[in-house]
Amino acid sequence: MKNETAEHSCPLTKAMANIGNKWKPIIVCVMHERNLRFGEIAARIPVISRKVLTDQLKEMELDGLLTRQEFKEIPPRVEYGLTEKGKALLPILKLLQEWETKFINQVSVV
Amino acid sequence: MKNETAEHSCPLTKAMANIGNKWKPIIVCVMHERNLRFGEIAARIPVISRKVLTDQLKEMELDGLLTRQEFKEIPPRVEYGLTEKGKALLPILKLLQEWETKFINQVSVV
Repeated sequence: MKNETAEHSCPLTKAMANIGNKWKPIIVCVMHERNLRFGEIAARIPVISRKVLTDQLKEMELDGLLTRQEFKEIPPRVEYGLTEKGKALLPILKLLQEWETKFINQVSVV
Repeated sequence: MKNETAEHSCPLTKAMANIGNKWKPIIVCVMHERNLRFGEIAARIPVISRKVLTDQLKEMELDGLLTRQEFKEIPPRVEYGLTEKGKALLPILKLLQEWETKFINQVSVV
């Protein structure tokens, strides 16, 4: 039997460390169409505070889910966009939505 | 434009509230083959404390991801098993693993 008891540094643990929180999947979803500025992202997720959004975007950039691009204009402009990794997550997030929707009323507690 | 700025109580937020943490996906994975007792689950995830595992299993039962069955034997036996909802998550978790594995070296920070 494969040693399942090995410490779980498996890709799934890393994936969940990457996206397994309340905000990151939503941020990826709202950016699915085009690059957005901070204010545009914040407007699409009104329930998130600016501080939390700032932190999440920084983490997501480090995790390779999105890019941050500065345009040397006056006033300066910053845009966020999904990387290939970020875009590749979209169909999986869609499956998760469908999974939740399908079972939404089937919470059976024995 | 669909009102994307509506508060995000969308299925994705609920799905992430359900499974979006470090342990639940791993617990679902180690239970993919058969029902397991607490000790068997703990043995398969040595890095998790018994307290945390107890709490996670309770939450997962309430979330409808698994069932908890008591057998009136001496000594009493308790087994955990995946519900349909839990089992339906397995292919999605596999996709997440593949996604992480595929992009594992492509963390590009601009």
